[in-house]
Amino acid sequence: MTAPKRAPGGFPVVGIIGGGQLARMCQPAAENLSITLSVLAESPDAAAALVIPSAPVGSHLDVDEVLAFARDCDVVTFDHEHVPAPVLHALVEAGVPVHPKPEALVYAQDKLAMRERLTELGIPCPAWAQVHDTVELAAFGDLHGWPVVLKTPRGGYDGKGVRVVDSATEAQDWFDRGEPLLAEAKVPFTRELAVLAARSPSGQAAVWPVVQTVQTDGICTEVLAPAPGLDPDLQAQIAQAALRLAGELDITGVFAVEVFEVPGVAGGPPSYVVNELAMRPHNSGHWTMDGSVTSQFEQHLRAVLDLPLGEVAPRAPWTVMGNVLGGADEELYSTYRHLLARDPGLKVHLYGKAVRPGRKIGHVNVYGDDLDQLRARAQHAADYLEGTVRQ
Amino acid sequence: MTAPKRAPGGFPVVGIIGGGQLARMCQPAAENLSITLSVLAESPDAAAALVIPSAPVGSHLDVDEVLAFARDCDVVTFDHEHVPAPVLHALVEAGVPVHPKPEALVYAQDKLAMRERLTELGIPCPAWAQVHDTVELAAFGDLHGWPVVLKTPRGGYDGKGVRVVDSATEAQDWFDRGEPLLAEAKVPFTRELAVLAARSPSGQAAVWPVVQTVQTDGICTEVLAPAPGLDPDLQAQIAQAALRLAGELDITGVFAVEVFEVPGVAGGPPSYVVNELAMRPHNSGHWTMDGSVTSQFEQHLRAVLDLPLGEVAPRAPWTVMGNVLGGADEELYSTYRHLLARDPGLKVHLYGKAVRPGRKIGHVNVYGDDLDQLRARAQHAADYLEGTVRQ
Repeated sequence: MTAPKRAPGGFPVVGIIGGGQLARMCQPAAENLSITLSVLAESPDAAAALVIPSAPVGSHLDVDEVLAFARDCDVVTFDHEHVPAPVLHALVEAGVPVHPKPEALVYAQDKLAMRERLTELGIPCPAWAQVHDTVELAAFGDLHGWPVVLKTPRGGYDGKGVRVVDSATEAQDWFDRGEPLLAEAKVPFTRELAVLAARSPSGQAAVWPVVQTVQTDGICTEVLAPAPGLDPDLQAQIAQAALRLAGELDITGVFAVEVFEVPGVAGGPPSYVVNELAMRPHNSGHWTMDGSVTSQFEQHLRAVLDLPLGEVAPRAPWTVMGNVLGGADEELYSTYRHLLARDPGLKVHLYGKAVRPGRKIGHVNVYGDDLDQLRARAQHAADYLEGTVRQ
Repeated sequence: MTAPKRAPGGFPVVGIIGGGQLARMCQPAAENLSITLSVLAESPDAAAALVIPSAPVGSHLDVDEVLAFARDCDVVTFDHEHVPAPVLHALVEAGVPVHPKPEALVYAQDKLAMRERLTELGIPCPAWAQVHDTVELAAFGDLHGWPVVLKTPRGGYDGKGVRVVDSATEAQDWFDRGEPLLAEAKVPFTRELAVLAARSPSGQAAVWPVVQTVQTDGICTEVLAPAPGLDPDLQAQIAQAALRLAGELDITGVFAVEVFEVPGVAGGPPSYVVNELAMRPHNSGHWTMDGSVTSQFEQHLRAVLDLPLGEVAPRAPWTVMGNVLGGADEELYSTYRHLLARDPGLKVHLYGKAVRPGRKIGHVNVYGDDLDQLRARAQHAADYLEGTVRQ
């Protein structure tokens, strides 16, 4: 493995395990800060490998490959949460600074561990239980009401590993795998929100404003920053929960907490329950690339290097992010050219990925004063690139 | 030469001759737009070669190396203006789209050609003449007054190739080189301004607001965007001159026109004369990286690819850029860490270059409402990184 080229002047190398779009989007921030990135990529044409000079191909499951990769890095962080605990611990034992640490990362890798810990901390969650079979699931559903949200504790993302069941027998196939599942009461929520924050090994922390996320078929398709009309007390509660979690779980780096906003009872104030926890830059934070003084990718690099964190103030009254999904047409460049002509203020972020129907291939950001107009622009851009509108 | 890895979907490769900081700063914009860059670099550790995967080492003076490099590129552009005309013409003859074109670039390469063309177009210039010896220079000085600004027509930058002489005999050493020189009357200017603009091969053009530049020893050290208190008529005149020049000279890509603001006669309105012309992204436009909807680097890529140009509106009332020069201390990272702690809103852009006293190694941008505070922050950051202030 060739050592990454380091900028002179004592600047560090950050190793990222995984060469997806999150690693890719760290590169512009790294370039400005003179930090060198090195990614352990899945393939030579991984999203990040197209833009980062040091991108050796290797597997995040192979402890020797990961250790060899880490040898040239001052700190190691992640593009995804799928690095197994033994590999993480081997890195730590080899003296490599790893952020987030394995002890924190487990709460993003294992949803049962997350629910248990959050409940201990008194952070609001939906009613939940670990269930081993249809009998336990039936008991849970009968107690908390049907349908029930059933989750595989590990490996889920973008709606995968989550299903909503109306009866216990429906879930027989998942129990047949022999692993316990997480059952959660279906929360009657108003909307989905997310809070993004960062914490450094020294304990400095910063929280961006709470945003509203719009999910379509389990994939985040739109983010409104900040969440329109959010009750200021609820904003403060959610931000405080994120900071408290960061400290209690000793999270380092950028992380996101996805929550449901729950309507107030009998005209009372709204509340929230935590849905998911992600310990890395997150789709709900892509708006920060153009909408905040410090982007989540710059902040993640600062945090894992224990550099002082950057300012998280929004740069415009509203920023709207629209995810771009692949459509039927593999050729994207001519579509994009037309789109740039239509909207000269659109900020396009593409991931260098081959177009496949439904695959996340990029996102757009727009910012300004008029939320409805911004939503229309972002939606149009996403639809146009996907090919579902033609003009 | 290994071909650069191209993003799927029909996205192009832009070749940049020269691996300096201007090529380097195109890379974040390219990554977002999914455009692949390839740089013909001076060395494996050139500023751009540290961050761009495709960075073959070669000379911009060698026509075969340049042609081989260009073979994998959809368009070729430049980090600097030093590529000789025969190399440029060989590219054009080989069918490579080159932007800016050699016929335009000559006006940035040759100051005598520039003065001649601008004068033909009726664009205000200082009084000037081509001078071949001390006799011609003495005649010019006696006519227009001493001191005289003397310039080598080619190869100057950052104050190099320019001197101010009080008598003709002082310049004997430059005449001894056997090349004619450009003599210019010293203009009694109020301040230096610059206008940055872009034009695409299709003829679309866009102009950023006129900025004020502050030069120290011939190096741009500070840029105030927009130029404070600028007469709106003068802003319009300068912007119109830039657009007219772009069309008349058939400029493609980003370019900058540096001008002197000249006080009005007898209480009349101020006017301007053109000082220099640069046909590439320019130091006076670094503020756009954080201060404008579209940065000059993104705009340059759009322009040379004949993509629609992006919006050039400022994002804040004021943006101030401060150039960072190298100081005595080669170790920069610990200084930078302290600086990030002091000013969490500071946007740092470092070029990955070894520190040498007086060398441009980066710049900082700050933006907001209070110009005096912004100037103080940018100045402090530059001084602190240079090591001339310690706290």
